[in-house]
Amino acid sequence: MATTRGGIDLGGTKIEAIAVDARHNVLGSARHPTPTSGGPEDVVAALAGAMTEACEAAGVKSSQLSGVGIGSPGVVDEETGTVSGARNLPGWAGSFELGPALSRELGSPVLVGNDVQVATEAEFHLGAGREYSSLLGVFWGTGVGGGVILNGKPWLGRGGAGEIGHMVVEIDGARCPCGRRGCMEAYAGRGAMEARARRKAEKGDKTDLFKIMEKKRGRTKLTSAVWWRAYDRKDKLATELIDEAVRALGAGIASAVNLLDVELVVIGGGLGVRFGEPFVERIEQAMQPHVFNTEHPPEVKLAVLGDIGGALGAALLGGQAAKRAPKAARAR
Amino acid sequence: MATTRGGIDLGGTKIEAIAVDARHNVLGSARHPTPTSGGPEDVVAALAGAMTEACEAAGVKSSQLSGVGIGSPGVVDEETGTVSGARNLPGWAGSFELGPALSRELGSPVLVGNDVQVATEAEFHLGAGREYSSLLGVFWGTGVGGGVILNGKPWLGRGGAGEIGHMVVEIDGARCPCGRRGCMEAYAGRGAMEARARRKAEKGDKTDLFKIMEKKRGRTKLTSAVWWRAYDRKDKLATELIDEAVRALGAGIASAVNLLDVELVVIGGGLGVRFGEPFVERIEQAMQPHVFNTEHPPEVKLAVLGDIGGALGAALLGGQAAKRAPKAARAR
Repeated sequence: MATTRGGIDLGGTKIEAIAVDARHNVLGSARHPTPTSGGPEDVVAALAGAMTEACEAAGVKSSQLSGVGIGSPGVVDEETGTVSGARNLPGWAGSFELGPALSRELGSPVLVGNDVQVATEAEFHLGAGREYSSLLGVFWGTGVGGGVILNGKPWLGRGGAGEIGHMVVEIDGARCPCGRRGCMEAYAGRGAMEARARRKAEKGDKTDLFKIMEKKRGRTKLTSAVWWRAYDRKDKLATELIDEAVRALGAGIASAVNLLDVELVVIGGGLGVRFGEPFVERIEQAMQPHVFNTEHPPEVKLAVLGDIGGALGAALLGGQAAKRAPKAARAR
Repeated sequence: MATTRGGIDLGGTKIEAIAVDARHNVLGSARHPTPTSGGPEDVVAALAGAMTEACEAAGVKSSQLSGVGIGSPGVVDEETGTVSGARNLPGWAGSFELGPALSRELGSPVLVGNDVQVATEAEFHLGAGREYSSLLGVFWGTGVGGGVILNGKPWLGRGGAGEIGHMVVEIDGARCPCGRRGCMEAYAGRGAMEARARRKAEKGDKTDLFKIMEKKRGRTKLTSAVWWRAYDRKDKLATELIDEAVRALGAGIASAVNLLDVELVVIGGGLGVRFGEPFVERIEQAMQPHVFNTEHPPEVKLAVLGDIGGALGAALLGGQAAKRAPKAARAR
């Protein structure tokens, strides 16, 4: 039991908590919606609730966890466990000491990491990247996040590395949700794709995207499942926007590869996982005209940990929390 | 004398050789034109000639050099000293063991590195980057080369990293000399800029670029000096093409910065050095709309070693050659 760890993937819509053993087998899990109102304290309560439920499923008490990791959006200071500017979380424009707050709640040491980075490390240590020493993780979802592993270690820069979604693929191109122009995410992010679909539909382009969305109870957003359904039905607008997304992903990922010459590119994220292998192939084809090192292009693979990758990466961080914590804290 | 090292910058048009002491003070130098016909053996003879002349100026024999480094174009295998596909050198489409060949000629141990990478290391160890631990070197010349230093060490990937010139800034954009479309170099490389200038002049665009070129005896190419003169005289076409180059550099470098979050960008190369500080500022401004980490943009500085940076970086490699070589080879 002393080696049971917790991992929590804190997303804008859901919280995924897991309890794992030392070999990262999942012993129990729980999924809760992320609070949409209130503030950081409410998020902490929801995290604690989900983690406790996962522990119950695993047959342990949350205070017995040797360490807990959180993969969080926003700007993360790993040393202090502080999260800043997490705009997808309620009342979280400022800074909040998430790690210490959850540690008090659970009675276990807690470390906080960036969500995309922990998902990249999960694929590196436990998933598609296990046999490689350098890789680029590309998480294709609401935005397009990137994680960089070089020489077996995460490259974080000064804390802001991996912003592959904001590499420029068209100077003066489409407006990105970040406010800039021509970013890869302006074409490939699910958020930007939905905004374009709405604009085009308003201008009279025919599409079933919004009908499909409404059929899914309670949905007000174009989820990955909605995009997939529309694409599968050969909806013209959906196909057009997805083709454009793939083109942008190809150019942006190839640019990153030309700079870093990594061994492997791993495609994950909501859209990446939902669209699966055929789209990994399409993205690889879209990279091809731009990859400079034609004799040694990188391998391109689908993330194998799927939806649970973020939580598994957070659990890896939980293992580090256990090692760093003084014995007193662990014994508590 | 035992600590005197040699460094040779092997370029497509000139060979720059220097002899330096252990503190990298230049004791002697020589500049020869690169052979335009023949094959690798002729290049080796020219390298040996330049190195010997630099040694004479320094008052040492070339066989007394403790080690020699070469910064070479093409694909370099540092282990074997083999250079492949150096298309700017005569008869060098295949592979040739440059390091061993020059070592036999000079009687000193020789290491070969990539020209852009050694110039980046020179700026890192001896130039603009001395106080930083991560930087991106951007060499703006005939092409646009890039060198990456992370955590104080060069990042070479699988040998093909740093191709910043072939990051995509416009999907389906202008044709690049590499054959691809929309690369940064297609707008910012001096080779591509000249090709565009010639096409536009043929179509009737007025420009003094070629008149200025002809006034420089023997010139058949638009050198950095020619571009500078035309720009300084407010030549319309030259200004237009240089503005476009700066725009592409801004987008491409910002993309690299968004991925790597380095502390420093160093601008060097023929055009970079000739255009100097005012253009470093212009490039920094052109990056600004694309840099994601607006609170902590990297510093952007001019390469301080100028024309001699490549040879100094090669001399650093010469120092490594001295350390690696067995005593017997050094005593020779």
